[in-house]
Amino acid sequence: MTAPKTTAIAQTLSAISPFVGPETNERARGKPFAARLGANESVFGPSPKAIAAMQDAAKDVWMYADAECFELRNALADYHGLSADNILIGEGIDGLLNYVVRLFIEPGDCVVTSAGAYPTFNYHVAGFGGKIETVPFKDDREDPDALLDKARECAAKLVYIANPDNPMGSWHNADVIEDMIARLPDGCLLILDEAYIEFAPEGTAPEWDMDNPQVLRMRTFSKAYGMAGARVGYAIGHPDLIRDFGKIRNHFGASRISLEGAVAALADQDYLVQTQDNVARSRARIAEAARANGLEPLPSATNFVTIDCKSDSAFAKRVLSELMERDIFVRMPFNPPQDRCIRISTGPEREMELFEEALPKALTAARAED
Amino acid sequence: MTAPKTTAIAQTLSAISPFVGPETNERARGKPFAARLGANESVFGPSPKAIAAMQDAAKDVWMYADAECFELRNALADYHGLSADNILIGEGIDGLLNYVVRLFIEPGDCVVTSAGAYPTFNYHVAGFGGKIETVPFKDDREDPDALLDKARECAAKLVYIANPDNPMGSWHNADVIEDMIARLPDGCLLILDEAYIEFAPEGTAPEWDMDNPQVLRMRTFSKAYGMAGARVGYAIGHPDLIRDFGKIRNHFGASRISLEGAVAALADQDYLVQTQDNVARSRARIAEAARANGLEPLPSATNFVTIDCKSDSAFAKRVLSELMERDIFVRMPFNPPQDRCIRISTGPEREMELFEEALPKALTAARAED
Repeated sequence: MTAPKTTAIAQTLSAISPFVGPETNERARGKPFAARLGANESVFGPSPKAIAAMQDAAKDVWMYADAECFELRNALADYHGLSADNILIGEGIDGLLNYVVRLFIEPGDCVVTSAGAYPTFNYHVAGFGGKIETVPFKDDREDPDALLDKARECAAKLVYIANPDNPMGSWHNADVIEDMIARLPDGCLLILDEAYIEFAPEGTAPEWDMDNPQVLRMRTFSKAYGMAGARVGYAIGHPDLIRDFGKIRNHFGASRISLEGAVAALADQDYLVQTQDNVARSRARIAEAARANGLEPLPSATNFVTIDCKSDSAFAKRVLSELMERDIFVRMPFNPPQDRCIRISTGPEREMELFEEALPKALTAARAED
Repeated sequence: MTAPKTTAIAQTLSAISPFVGPETNERARGKPFAARLGANESVFGPSPKAIAAMQDAAKDVWMYADAECFELRNALADYHGLSADNILIGEGIDGLLNYVVRLFIEPGDCVVTSAGAYPTFNYHVAGFGGKIETVPFKDDREDPDALLDKARECAAKLVYIANPDNPMGSWHNADVIEDMIARLPDGCLLILDEAYIEFAPEGTAPEWDMDNPQVLRMRTFSKAYGMAGARVGYAIGHPDLIRDFGKIRNHFGASRISLEGAVAALADQDYLVQTQDNVARSRARIAEAARANGLEPLPSATNFVTIDCKSDSAFAKRVLSELMERDIFVRMPFNPPQDRCIRISTGPEREMELFEEALPKALTAARAED
């Protein structure tokens, strides 16, 4: 019995998740968190109509989902004023990032992103043998000029930018992104991750341009629609680009229940507005708590607030750890200089109270360890 | 604006699903099917307890699922008398096949399967540039000796066998599979697809041997547990093999609702037994209808019956098409000589009546076209 050998690429990889899940933390701690504010989930939950649609669909789960996701694709096309041919449904943006990397990256191909940007994208790039080149954030925002310079320098196949950005919550106005798109090197695909776009000010999302084959935009039901556990994301782009995913995607990969939930969630725009209001209020409250404790909340166009702890990474890590110790699940940026910060997802009253109560205690403890 | 170029492998692929989904058929026909008996789904549905668990989990869908699928993995480990380290949860067997091919196949690597076996496996092999070598079925069963001979001949990295088999419904006793495993060439991994194992006679599944790194077994909640639309499958194997999937899998890819449903479905073994009984009765009934109409039902260890139409492929295609015309969704094997058959999934009373009513009419029409 000789074990089979994995591919040369697989042999370079570690079996490590880009994120430690809160349940993994809870098992290690031996107790649950009281407030789950670390994964930018929507603690406000999905629309009651989406919940009802999923409950209703549960009895139909014996059927595979529609391989074409026809109903959801058409609902999204109507909603955005696009054609269904512009839309690809996938198993969350994570699933879509896997597909786009697989479709375009051969071993050694260059991919450009920002140092400290979404690690799951890097995980997929490494997973297909791509070469990741990074540029630093500039004033806590992703830097389109630097990304383009690097893309030209290494003849990048893919450039990734999130707008609004995670983990900093910062954003660029649409004109900056449009200008970036106009200056993309030939043959380079821009992945514009708009997971948080529903929380951003008017004028953050570029106009749709479905004639441009160099841009793939990604959206999700995981954030504003409160359905992270349903795994429904979508990519928007040129029909030829969208069609190419049919060569590699798992055609019957969607959950029937999740698709029904997404259709209902999209139809309930009143609830989306309510979530947007709730998030805005919670952002203000997190910011206030940060200031009241001598920290600096960064401006946010997302459903989280990144808080500058006004010291070094070691201190931010202590604050994080002291918050976790007090049963508040939060995360922090991985890379300097953003790792001077911690990142708090918005949430309802109860979670905000728990956070407000824990923060001063966590800071006192973190400072005492200094 | 120059469109980005996909990989050399992607350029060899077509954007075609391995299967046409029933919803796609329905849209093309302009009307729904009356009986959905083509995709080997469980028309008997999932356990009411699984439905209730999924309905209950719908409100929690704002949370990503546990990246480790801890509860389900442990429940499966208990059920099978294995360790959780032997079990990998994936987005259906389709998702797991994608992962295993990606983990082991480099362009040009040889992969052995049977001509006319599961096309989604071939789809993934082609998708990673693998070279598919096939051997014929022998007496309507997969042929372990021929698979092994071919594997040795081309130094195969992977060999695929389904036991019981789809699309023929045939099976081998455990000792045949155990003998095949014992004779696997060094460094070759056997994928033993046991999607239909819960419908097979005692003595079909080999004993567990978790010390052997050359076998990966696959099971699913899509068939006997009636949860195809939930997308939960699992692979069982040596801990080192299972661990390697952590290098490439989508760690947060599972639906939270689906995982809860699977745990509840597994716990309701009484319902499984009821489904097994229902399937056995329905198989007998389909076989009887076939015989009553001068056709030959093949023995089945699955939740479908493959019916030999006692003529050529063209005739079987006409029967299929006449059944579809009469609102009965069925499928048939793709490859000769199995494509002399049609394949009918089992189902409850109503579906059986519709099938029994449509079959003689479809046959008359198909014979008239001769």
